[in-house]
Amino acid sequence: MSSRDKHDRMANAIRFLSADAVEKAKSGHPGLPMGAADVATVLFKKFLKHDPHHPLWPDRDRFVLSAGHGSMLLYSLLYLTGYEDITIDEIKNFRQLGSKTAGHPEFGHAAGIETTTGPLGQGLANAVGMALAERILNARFGDGIVDHHTYVLAGDGCLMEGISQEAITLAGHLKLGKLIVFFDDNNISIDGPVSLADSTDQCARFAASGWHTQRCDGHDPDAIAEAIEAARASDQPSLIACKTTIGFGAPTRAGTNKAHGSPLGAEEIEGARKALGWEAPAFEVPSDILDMWRLAGLRSVKDRKEWEGRLAAADAELRSEFERRMRGELPGGFETVIADYKKALVKDKPKVATRKSSEMALEVINAALPETIGGSADLTGSNNTKTSQTKPITPDDFSGRYIYYGVREHGMAAAMNGIALHGGLIPYGGTFLVFTDYCRPAIRLSALMGQRVVYVMTHDSIGLGEDGPTHQPVEHLAALRAIPNLRVFRPADAVETAECWQLALADTSGPSVLALTRQNLPAVRKEHFEENLCGFGAYELEKPEDEAEVTIFATGSEVEIALAARKLIEAKGRRTRVVSVPSMELFVAQSAEYQAAIIGEAGVRVAIEAGVRQSWDRLIGPDGIFIGMSGFGASAPYEDLYAHFGITAQAACDAVLERLSTAS
Amino acid sequence: MSSRDKHDRMANAIRFLSADAVEKAKSGHPGLPMGAADVATVLFKKFLKHDPHHPLWPDRDRFVLSAGHGSMLLYSLLYLTGYEDITIDEIKNFRQLGSKTAGHPEFGHAAGIETTTGPLGQGLANAVGMALAERILNARFGDGIVDHHTYVLAGDGCLMEGISQEAITLAGHLKLGKLIVFFDDNNISIDGPVSLADSTDQCARFAASGWHTQRCDGHDPDAIAEAIEAARASDQPSLIACKTTIGFGAPTRAGTNKAHGSPLGAEEIEGARKALGWEAPAFEVPSDILDMWRLAGLRSVKDRKEWEGRLAAADAELRSEFERRMRGELPGGFETVIADYKKALVKDKPKVATRKSSEMALEVINAALPETIGGSADLTGSNNTKTSQTKPITPDDFSGRYIYYGVREHGMAAAMNGIALHGGLIPYGGTFLVFTDYCRPAIRLSALMGQRVVYVMTHDSIGLGEDGPTHQPVEHLAALRAIPNLRVFRPADAVETAECWQLALADTSGPSVLALTRQNLPAVRKEHFEENLCGFGAYELEKPEDEAEVTIFATGSEVEIALAARKLIEAKGRRTRVVSVPSMELFVAQSAEYQAAIIGEAGVRVAIEAGVRQSWDRLIGPDGIFIGMSGFGASAPYEDLYAHFGITAQAACDAVLERLSTAS
Repeated sequence: MSSRDKHDRMANAIRFLSADAVEKAKSGHPGLPMGAADVATVLFKKFLKHDPHHPLWPDRDRFVLSAGHGSMLLYSLLYLTGYEDITIDEIKNFRQLGSKTAGHPEFGHAAGIETTTGPLGQGLANAVGMALAERILNARFGDGIVDHHTYVLAGDGCLMEGISQEAITLAGHLKLGKLIVFFDDNNISIDGPVSLADSTDQCARFAASGWHTQRCDGHDPDAIAEAIEAARASDQPSLIACKTTIGFGAPTRAGTNKAHGSPLGAEEIEGARKALGWEAPAFEVPSDILDMWRLAGLRSVKDRKEWEGRLAAADAELRSEFERRMRGELPGGFETVIADYKKALVKDKPKVATRKSSEMALEVINAALPETIGGSADLTGSNNTKTSQTKPITPDDFSGRYIYYGVREHGMAAAMNGIALHGGLIPYGGTFLVFTDYCRPAIRLSALMGQRVVYVMTHDSIGLGEDGPTHQPVEHLAALRAIPNLRVFRPADAVETAECWQLALADTSGPSVLALTRQNLPAVRKEHFEENLCGFGAYELEKPEDEAEVTIFATGSEVEIALAARKLIEAKGRRTRVVSVPSMELFVAQSAEYQAAIIGEAGVRVAIEAGVRQSWDRLIGPDGIFIGMSGFGASAPYEDLYAHFGITAQAACDAVLERLSTAS
Repeated sequence: MSSRDKHDRMANAIRFLSADAVEKAKSGHPGLPMGAADVATVLFKKFLKHDPHHPLWPDRDRFVLSAGHGSMLLYSLLYLTGYEDITIDEIKNFRQLGSKTAGHPEFGHAAGIETTTGPLGQGLANAVGMALAERILNARFGDGIVDHHTYVLAGDGCLMEGISQEAITLAGHLKLGKLIVFFDDNNISIDGPVSLADSTDQCARFAASGWHTQRCDGHDPDAIAEAIEAARASDQPSLIACKTTIGFGAPTRAGTNKAHGSPLGAEEIEGARKALGWEAPAFEVPSDILDMWRLAGLRSVKDRKEWEGRLAAADAELRSEFERRMRGELPGGFETVIADYKKALVKDKPKVATRKSSEMALEVINAALPETIGGSADLTGSNNTKTSQTKPITPDDFSGRYIYYGVREHGMAAAMNGIALHGGLIPYGGTFLVFTDYCRPAIRLSALMGQRVVYVMTHDSIGLGEDGPTHQPVEHLAALRAIPNLRVFRPADAVETAECWQLALADTSGPSVLALTRQNLPAVRKEHFEENLCGFGAYELEKPEDEAEVTIFATGSEVEIALAARKLIEAKGRRTRVVSVPSMELFVAQSAEYQAAIIGEAGVRVAIEAGVRQSWDRLIGPDGIFIGMSGFGASAPYEDLYAHFGITAQAACDAVLERLSTAS
């Protein structure tokens, strides 16, 4: 068998595993796997550094299928090269309940799936984060320990999404030379030819942001290999536009949008078998082909062993630090660091904005945790995300710990996902809370993948004042609380801010949002510093000696208002509690007893939050009093806005007294 | 005074109005107005077709300040050219409660503010929609009635945002030659020099998508004028990269990020006055300068009068149609069209997906409303957004009514805002409901600006099946319901779908989201077709003869489940109502009596919706039974998923019976 024959048969194994799995599932996307099989075969056979039997080898190359609908391409490659998670039964079980082979690649379902993709453009932006993490860790641990490539397969859809521009320009600026993107340039999108909707010269576009670009025939293995060699030789990030035929081999559907997103049908598959000379029945890969693939899967075993040797021979402290980081464990003693910091706060009782409290906490955290990587989407001074330890990362020096992400909230969030997925680093990044909208698809993926990413979201209400309604989050706390597996923290003072940071960093199972004020806040916690009370999600801050008639729940900047309202109400002789609610998610995860005790028996329940009511009915019920926003904000000094929108201690007091008088 | 002197003094009037207003407000952004004053002066003095005394003249050029933080530039221009809404007192009242001069330009506050900007990149993408609307209306009404330019001033931030790429590539593809973008190329972003975060050659990037590009000295009025002439002569959309100095004239802050976003301070402003030879006190514009500006504001009066003459002379039907469209009124008889269509549905009782019901309704709507402009973000066949009337719009022919937006959800949504803002057209566009996350910032602006944009969001739950959790909205209904002034519709069958479409089109005060299924649904409405019951937001679908013990609320695809659950529960002898809730927003806008009657007195309240619980406590209370999702979905055939996640009639029945047995 000639080398070309071998290649073709190996690629055809991908094509038919994919087409047959889609056929059996009665849904899925055969077009991309059949079209990109040649590119993937060359990459996995000749270049990708990975070991299917040690799939989490830290220095493996990362392969990201950004065009996640082509999931069968990835599953086929994992099965063929010998990843244990993806058996032929899993392939047969494509898109069925409980299988590892979901419709789109789901991180955590199987080793070898480096990230969850499907929402277009995300994988490309994750890969920028991975490539950045590689350079940062390389700067810290050296070529012997961290030195790998990140490869991406992206389609037209990925490149039309705006997030791709943020990712491309960031990667180009930072000269991430070990990032190589294959553009599956098949001229087809779901609605038909790409020419229906786009006329962009992608190579020229990438080149405009400092990328090395090439075009090649995506069905010519030699041309593909040459292009990869050239890309690896370049010190710029590389785009290889591979001209391919979607659904390659399908007699009537190849090259059309009919090959994209639905089963080809028995007849078309039969025709493809004839056209490509593939005689094996569905889900059977001829043993010689499977052997070739499994052999390809062993190609990097020597590399891996050498790497293990280098790690074993490395300085013991360096090695131990690397291993700790890759396990995602915080260093011993971190809890003490936070506890000591809180003790200092008790003394100082600083009256500062929580964005400033966050900076103060970060100053302590970044000193204790060398793995944090900070950044901001061009709001460094406003988000207070930079501390004395975080030297900027530049195209020429990756030894820093701070990323100027530019005005790229979405790209930042997706890059942070990539950094977290890579391992060895804990990313945090800032923008204004209102702009969580700009990065919401990536925040959702942080949550879906369970990645420890910390979103530092300042200017968290009308309290930002004059910038007005476009910049004032109103619905955002509710909208973020709606996302499963995301923790939304809204601390009320410096102590709570430190505690929320501690919780966000200690939680390896998912992302956190810290919602922080622009305006100054007084210290509200007066006791119980030794415990992390924010960990309960909600806790009693003040209470009357006898049973309360009124409970006021509040978060963040409105805790101060709740405490002032309590004074006014108590002055009228009505017994009132105040509960701080730094995290609804953590609160509803507490025992039923704890929740019942915190919600309490008071007849009047009030919630104060400078956002919409939605999410609060759970605590106060539909009959509870809500002091907050019912529409968009306005542009004015913030004190005027709080008065204008009636978010004041007096308004809360009046509403409570009216309710009490009606009830009695 | 030389021509150059006149220009300089006119530009300086902008500079000092801006710097002084920011100073007085103690917050704001002096840098952009001072830097871009020359560009704006040339544009407004020599090119912009507008009439300050007839600010809503339909054929005026549109000017969009995409870099909305530079709002004082726009307010200064409106004041200087004589727009009545913006008086010198409004300028003095910059960023104060109740002023028309908000921190960022707010559509609706004053004539001349063509769109709300501030969230970066949105204005540029709105402008693409405006330029597109101009071409579409030109194709319909001719050069004599619609033939104007759309100008944009965008900053580095706008161009770093991903949405800008979606906007640029769409405009380039469609060859929107009357769109001209000034890039305020001042090399400065908030964190410092743009070189901290970006190295993109913007001209090369735009050229890669078919734009005409030029660079010019943004402080040389002749060079600016020449560039505008060349841009107007080109049949491609045009970028003019104007090299400017941020904070031009400020002695120590000009050219640095210190000029960007805070008051310059008295000393710096004094220095600028000296440097630029401006002796007038704050908020005083020397009368000769003001005269020159006011004269410039009169430049297009002749044009406007001629246009009015052409419109008056036009075919009466054409003129009446144009005027109706620009008023945003639906044609008479539209209600009858929908009523007749509903009658047909009563006979047929089609069992179809609501995305198909939507297509059926659109077939009727698009025949009756020539002003609808459909589209999809590359999911035409899935969103069912194309009907027989909607020929595609192409770069060479704008007589169509369908836009292939490409995989650009965010760009689509923002372009739709621009189309709606332009007037004369009603845009609707589709993608999957989960991808409302991708266009959320633009949806928010539709709501904030009160624009009639219809979002056709299909595949609205785990009911989409095999594509899995990345494609399954779970939190999205709640997250959308949290946005003020947005109506979220989730119809349960073909009749409800028609009614929701009618409501969305009739509402000129804001946007609507239609959440539609992929899977087929039976007809659930059995009576009361003559009235639009969806207009009440929620209504009783089935009820027992005697007082109900159980009320089940449901939306969309889960109404079928609620009805089946009712049967099971009634079979156990427990009296049960079912309430369909096509729109929570409309429901909570009803009278207290209506709401109380619909919520009812039943002891057990249940909500069934294949999403998260948030937003339902308002109807069922914290003690109500919720049958829905508590986390992300999974990949499997949809029937398996409903069973797996326990969203079934049996599960609802079991929960209700258990609750009834506990209670009794």
